[in-house]
Amino acid sequence: MTESTTDAHTRAACPVLPPRGPAHPLGLAQVSITGGFWHARQAVNAAATLAHCESWMERLGWLANFDRVADGTTSPDRPGWPFSDSEVYKLLEALAWESARTGDPEAETAIKRLTARVGRAQDPDGYLNTCFGHRGRPPRYSDLEGGHELYNIGHLLQAAVARLRTSGEDELVRIARRAADHVCRTFGPDGLPKICGHPEIEVGLAEFGRALGEDRYIEQARLFLDRRGHGTLGDIPLGRAYFQDDIPIRQADVWRGHAVRALYLAAAAVDVAVERGDDELLRAVERQWERSVARRTYITGGMGSRHQDEGFGEDWELPPDRAYCETCAGVASIMVSWRLYLATGDVRYTDLIERTLYNVIAASPAADGRAFFYANPLHQRAPGRPSDPDEVSPRAESGQRAAWFDVSCCPTNVARTLASLGGYLATTGDDGLQIHQYAPCDIDARLPDGRRVAVAVETRYPDGGTVRVRITADEPAPWSLALRVPAWADGATLDEDGRARPVTPGLVTIRRVFRAGEVITLELPMEPRFTWPDPRIDAVRGCVAVERGPEVLCAESHDLPRPDALDALVIDPRTPPRADSGGARVRGRVPAHRDRPWPYGPAVAPAEDGEWFDVPLRPYHSWARRGPSGMRVWLPVSGP
Amino acid sequence: MTESTTDAHTRAACPVLPPRGPAHPLGLAQVSITGGFWHARQAVNAAATLAHCESWMERLGWLANFDRVADGTTSPDRPGWPFSDSEVYKLLEALAWESARTGDPEAETAIKRLTARVGRAQDPDGYLNTCFGHRGRPPRYSDLEGGHELYNIGHLLQAAVARLRTSGEDELVRIARRAADHVCRTFGPDGLPKICGHPEIEVGLAEFGRALGEDRYIEQARLFLDRRGHGTLGDIPLGRAYFQDDIPIRQADVWRGHAVRALYLAAAAVDVAVERGDDELLRAVERQWERSVARRTYITGGMGSRHQDEGFGEDWELPPDRAYCETCAGVASIMVSWRLYLATGDVRYTDLIERTLYNVIAASPAADGRAFFYANPLHQRAPGRPSDPDEVSPRAESGQRAAWFDVSCCPTNVARTLASLGGYLATTGDDGLQIHQYAPCDIDARLPDGRRVAVAVETRYPDGGTVRVRITADEPAPWSLALRVPAWADGATLDEDGRARPVTPGLVTIRRVFRAGEVITLELPMEPRFTWPDPRIDAVRGCVAVERGPEVLCAESHDLPRPDALDALVIDPRTPPRADSGGARVRGRVPAHRDRPWPYGPAVAPAEDGEWFDVPLRPYHSWARRGPSGMRVWLPVSGP
Repeated sequence: MTESTTDAHTRAACPVLPPRGPAHPLGLAQVSITGGFWHARQAVNAAATLAHCESWMERLGWLANFDRVADGTTSPDRPGWPFSDSEVYKLLEALAWESARTGDPEAETAIKRLTARVGRAQDPDGYLNTCFGHRGRPPRYSDLEGGHELYNIGHLLQAAVARLRTSGEDELVRIARRAADHVCRTFGPDGLPKICGHPEIEVGLAEFGRALGEDRYIEQARLFLDRRGHGTLGDIPLGRAYFQDDIPIRQADVWRGHAVRALYLAAAAVDVAVERGDDELLRAVERQWERSVARRTYITGGMGSRHQDEGFGEDWELPPDRAYCETCAGVASIMVSWRLYLATGDVRYTDLIERTLYNVIAASPAADGRAFFYANPLHQRAPGRPSDPDEVSPRAESGQRAAWFDVSCCPTNVARTLASLGGYLATTGDDGLQIHQYAPCDIDARLPDGRRVAVAVETRYPDGGTVRVRITADEPAPWSLALRVPAWADGATLDEDGRARPVTPGLVTIRRVFRAGEVITLELPMEPRFTWPDPRIDAVRGCVAVERGPEVLCAESHDLPRPDALDALVIDPRTPPRADSGGARVRGRVPAHRDRPWPYGPAVAPAEDGEWFDVPLRPYHSWARRGPSGMRVWLPVSGP
Repeated sequence: MTESTTDAHTRAACPVLPPRGPAHPLGLAQVSITGGFWHARQAVNAAATLAHCESWMERLGWLANFDRVADGTTSPDRPGWPFSDSEVYKLLEALAWESARTGDPEAETAIKRLTARVGRAQDPDGYLNTCFGHRGRPPRYSDLEGGHELYNIGHLLQAAVARLRTSGEDELVRIARRAADHVCRTFGPDGLPKICGHPEIEVGLAEFGRALGEDRYIEQARLFLDRRGHGTLGDIPLGRAYFQDDIPIRQADVWRGHAVRALYLAAAAVDVAVERGDDELLRAVERQWERSVARRTYITGGMGSRHQDEGFGEDWELPPDRAYCETCAGVASIMVSWRLYLATGDVRYTDLIERTLYNVIAASPAADGRAFFYANPLHQRAPGRPSDPDEVSPRAESGQRAAWFDVSCCPTNVARTLASLGGYLATTGDDGLQIHQYAPCDIDARLPDGRRVAVAVETRYPDGGTVRVRITADEPAPWSLALRVPAWADGATLDEDGRARPVTPGLVTIRRVFRAGEVITLELPMEPRFTWPDPRIDAVRGCVAVERGPEVLCAESHDLPRPDALDALVIDPRTPPRADSGGARVRGRVPAHRDRPWPYGPAVAPAEDGEWFDVPLRPYHSWARRGPSGMRVWLPVSGP
């Protein structure tokens, strides 16, 4: 790598900045989302969600926990779970990206306000935790299985990375450095040979090491990674697979156990693999991704089939009604796929990111940014109860977005993802620009050799399929413009000179000299389409889904004639879905089933077929926005 | 009711003895199982399971917990969950039935040995618990949501009922009386207006009151029942529906929350309804049974669709792979259905008992009686790990029977059910005898008016479908012999005079004078049959099951050609299943699916169909007896 490449990297304000790899991420200074689907969500995030999160953490005493440590008033009664500190750090990370994205002075003020409270709680040796290690509280590191002390610090480090890359070293970075040094001293090669029950410190250390150019942090991440999988932690009722301490990561073939843990760990493994040129490790994560995506992932991109352990199930175990698909697992999946893309340049990773963005991340927040889905099932049988904006939901499985949760990891995770989303849209390689996600945006970057690549993207995507890439700077030397044609986009065309030509899924690349004002137009086919599951996914046998562009669609009880219609709805798979105002319509009917006292018998129970009618389908991410509803993504097809 | 009826009742050695109703249960003195399927299991229970349970409880310190209370050496370190006392009581109940069943002196010795240790731990005021209320332990009744104090006493009372009805008042009964009196004093009308998080005290108090003729215990059961459902207990993450404190039982339409809790509560409600002539309450339980059986019950009779809360799911939420179907919920379901049968005489209840006996209760114990299934899924994707006879399983979801569990409610529950099984086979009404479950047995009973009804049942059921009922005593007056024709037995015949005539499901009744030596023969059709699910059970759409007599059959990976064959197996629904040595064979094939990187697409993925072959199916209750296996009850049918 040339020196100039490294400089370009260190200047990029983005969450992940690997030192090598075929694709170099662009940061918020190079990519600015200017309108459309994601810009609207970023605006709501900025205007409502960030303050919403801080206000709930204040109200519940999660922020005051820091004050209590500082004031020496800790006691056995402490509000919040042991991981509540991490919510403050995730909010700080979100604020740091937000401050860089818009220059909002309120974000900057909030960062300083929160940083000051956090900093006061740090012990002289760098230890920082409000649940352990102080008067009336359990000792430091006395519950590595469940205590989340290192997990919390991992999020602090990610917040510090955001700060370092957007405004440089400040008090938050200094706090993080002291905490990271404490971790390295305590758990280094000569320290406690232990790990944290919830991976996150690894990914935090790796990037913090990159951002500061401190290899010892990366080395500590590697050490944690290699320690894991040997039964280092105690056994628990859910088993050691729950926290991925059952099998060393290099030996695993698939993700298992708690989904967020598995994915944060995988993200760190990619970081360490890239840092150390460890192809075996990189290949292990790719292999796990491949099988997990082929057999353990929902059509929404959601991961985690089980409520019991918030975890992956077995291969093909993908029940839509009990899909957990935690919002945070969506965030974590994007973290892994983005790192894998940067390391390999394989668009299957950015394909999955798109799917997850539209069908997990976008599904979580309410329109007002003040309520969130924690779990994202693909089938809601009974409508959830209406959410109370003033109430903490003790549960994750409601069919209605909740203002806050007892375990409230998702709101801040969505907030930091939305605020930094510009960093996931495009990359540069040695020869040009690659655009991965389509949103109205301005991109202005330099290649390693100094060539300027600048474009404006204009699109109504995903409402419309036309993506116009306007060149906004002259550059006399030729360069490559690559656009991702999504895997689903059968029939896409590219027009660079008034003549549209067909293009196939993957990166379509144009290499030449571009002139400012030129427009390249990608047309993605936005007709709604039927999507069929692998026959081995038992839980959706005999069903079909409808997708439109990157969006998975769903039927909602609001749009059906009877309260129990969702249970009986069947659709006609011979009549293709028709486009309808951002969604689709399919031909369906609601058979009237005769209730039998015992639901099993020598023949399928007879039913009156019912009249065919047009069933409206809407984007899954918008479900329950009209109030609690029954919903289903997978639609049973009418009999042969 | 006549006085003589009451006398007949109080003499019957059986777990449930309501004071009125169309059917009067017979006890172990009147019904003796002499051979066959259940006798073999009773023998293993006697020879192995009872001692196995005592030995594990000794080894784990659950018995020593009683000694520690007696010796004043309790401390914060106490082995076992708060409900471990109840396992001792359930074992005592099993031993009491076993002692009556066979007169085994070892059972009697064990009862005295255990009773002495339990008795020493009782406080002077009758309070009896090893987890709460003593030095180093939390105070009495300080955690009614999770502490199980009253639940434990409920099981003590059931053990005392068994003792009372098999050998009369002894030390165990006196202990139980003191405990029950303490409960009534503490939680009576003027006491703490609270309830226990796990119902069981209610059903224990009701029967203990019956057995002793003490109405105040029944009244206390009623009081607990009516208190429930008003948010009496604190909220918990799983919600108050978890312990049925969300809705008063009279208002509920369906069972919900933790299955064992819901069912123990329903059993008590029937008892109270019958005692108080409370038809509204009885009808409420019947209504809940109807909807739960029609929409929330597995083909095995198993109940509980969710691992997360060991609970019922929504209507139609019946995933076979994540079926929890706790063995104890099977026991509890039989408790409810038996009480409803006794109260109503409706054979739908005894039909469900048969299904549950063969497909839940019989499935749990290993052939040697020293390992047990806790959960009874209908689909095991990956074989469980081999069980270690020397190891406590921390988890309930293994695909292999475990010697003991961290939460080990199921082994003792199976033990008490098997030991008392004779009490569930037959009833008398005012005019005769009704036989509900078919096993080789001797029945010798008197009707309320003194007529003697005595028969011997000879059968190989369920291996064979011939049930011969031989009259074994002359009785000059006519009486009614009623035999249950199971709901599945389409084509059954009855032969009482050399000519077989068709009979339809329900109770088929012959009323006349019977002479000793006469034989009535019921022929039940034992050809294996396809059984189809209601189309609204999403998780098994496009699948069929095979049943044979009362047994649900299953395919096991042991019998399939490839390790992954169970994932892809399809069967031909146009070729009826053929009988095969206690099971069946169906025509099936294993398509070779092409693995796709993303398991959803515009068409069903092509596969090579594979050759047709005969797929052996075996009784579900025998699965994994040949070692860990993959297994499925619901078999996908090959395409249209």
